[in-house]
Amino acid sequence: MIGKTIDELSVGERAELSKTISESDVYLFAGITGDLNPAHVNERYARQTRFGRRVVHGMLLGGLISSVLANQLPGPGTIYVEQRLEFLAPVFIGDTVTARVEVLSKSDDGKRVTLETVVLGDDGAEVVRGSAVVSPPRRPRAS
Amino acid sequence: MIGKTIDELSVGERAELSKTISESDVYLFAGITGDLNPAHVNERYARQTRFGRRVVHGMLLGGLISSVLANQLPGPGTIYVEQRLEFLAPVFIGDTVTARVEVLSKSDDGKRVTLETVVLGDDGAEVVRGSAVVSPPRRPRAS
Amino acid sequence: MIGKTIDELSVGERAELSKTISESDVYLFAGITGDLNPAHVNERYARQTRFGRRVVHGMLLGGLISSVLANQLPGPGTIYVEQRLEFLAPVFIGDTVTARVEVLSKSDDGKRVTLETVVLGDDGAEVVRGSAVVSPPRRPRAS
Amino acid sequence: MIGKTIDELSVGERAELSKTISESDVYLFAGITGDLNPAHVNERYARQTRFGRRVVHGMLLGGLISSVLANQLPGPGTIYVEQRLEFLAPVFIGDTVTARVEVLSKSDDGKRVTLETVVLGDDGAEVVRGSAVVSPPRRPRAS
Repeated sequence: MIGKTIDELSVGERAELSKTISESDVYLFAGITGDLNPAHVNERYARQTRFGRRVVHGMLLGGLISSVLANQLPGPGTIYVEQRLEFLAPVFIGDTVTARVEVLSKSDDGKRVTLETVVLGDDGAEVVRGSAVVSPPRRPRAS
Repeated sequence: MIGKTIDELSVGERAELSKTISESDVYLFAGITGDLNPAHVNERYARQTRFGRRVVHGMLLGGLISSVLANQLPGPGTIYVEQRLEFLAPVFIGDTVTARVEVLSKSDDGKRVTLETVVLGDDGAEVVRGSAVVSPPRRPRAS
Repeated sequence: MIGKTIDELSVGERAELSKTISESDVYLFAGITGDLNPAHVNERYARQTRFGRRVVHGMLLGGLISSVLANQLPGPGTIYVEQRLEFLAPVFIGDTVTARVEVLSKSDDGKRVTLETVVLGDDGAEVVRGSAVVSPPRRPRAS
Repeated sequence: MIGKTIDELSVGERAELSKTISESDVYLFAGITGDLNPAHVNERYARQTRFGRRVVHGMLLGGLISSVLANQLPGPGTIYVEQRLEFLAPVFIGDTVTARVEVLSKSDDGKRVTLETVVLGDDGAEVVRGSAVVSPPRRPRAS
């Protein structure tokens, strides 16, 4: 249950997670965060906005990015240091999205890794763009 | 159901949301994002980490920030443009946290607002720090 | 809140539970078990499989069977000893299924009951077949 | 997103998933399956049973087994054919359990794999024992 150490990571390495975002995902996320903004949970209101439908919380998409970092690349044992997110376009209930991370660089002191983090929307275009800094897991030292 | 327009917002204005993070919050967030990392859902594993207990997903705390932006300041109608998050310290199941946002500046073109965004942990110290850029709601024009 | 004792059960006796399986049932089950297999939560991936749509977790259907055993026949107080399940055909989100149990035999020592357990799919055909062994509740002895 | 084909699987190969079962896991599983048996969701009732506490649904543990089969070994693309489960001991809310699968044999026709499937309870002893038959994923043929 230990992910990749900084030495095991290569610049350019990628991992991703795809999921169709369900109404229940959005409603539970609303319940957890208290963000019951009508744009997310009021279909009648949403129809009158410029998006025309209920949109998925941007931070839920951020959660998919963090899931890839925590479970795949680098994986278990990773410490999350920083995340920057730009929200480019709305995602709607029922859209299938892909969160993808790619190793951009490793710090000189061998402690931190910077990754490009994007979410691709239902049509494959970027809907979230950004970058993460993480501290990858370390191997337990031999005693 | 319309939040504050850029003209109605003042630099220094604040809003916040406090919540005790329950085990079910963490477990549902794990289910939505697929992040069932043992640090979040395996108490036995977590005891052997340097944190000693199951930690709350950092991005769940990001969700609390986005909730304050979407529902209070500026409120309904806000478009999320950008979020930067630094994760400073772990939050544990059962901790009571406060997500707080404060208007830092308004853009010259009258379209965007930058806010400081922090989450305070159970003891009141900062556990997440960062900033958000949003596009506040606009009043419907008189017809 | 006590179900039927072995003496109160008759061979051939039946009970059943019908439910339309919602997307939220499948997504919550995915979150509980960690089974976010794309066949269950990625509509785009599922379209390319031989089933063409997102399928319901087989073990969720097993859960409906156990629900009938625990709540109806024999009912509260039943101890689950064994379950065998054969998965015959896929069930899709939105399908209405029926879990049905029927008493097949009672053990000579008066302790265990074997039941046939099936799940019928949206068109009434068997989608899961199998059998269960349970230890029915006992009456509290007179003091 | 394709798991191991039958040729890539070795007898003796193992995979596992560990999780602390939360109250919300049990309550949501109750809601999905309708199994709101008092032994699972009524603490006052449960205190008077021989187990003394609310027990986790046996089939939820079956779900953890199916999660390992579907996501790890053989992994995505696996078709579930059969599962046999013996429930040996109760699991309680808060227990950390491990679902483990091990390849036992491969069928002569190269289509099916039998795996031993167990769940270990909080103290490491077997709480569920059984076996699964699955049809592993196949590689898409070159065209």
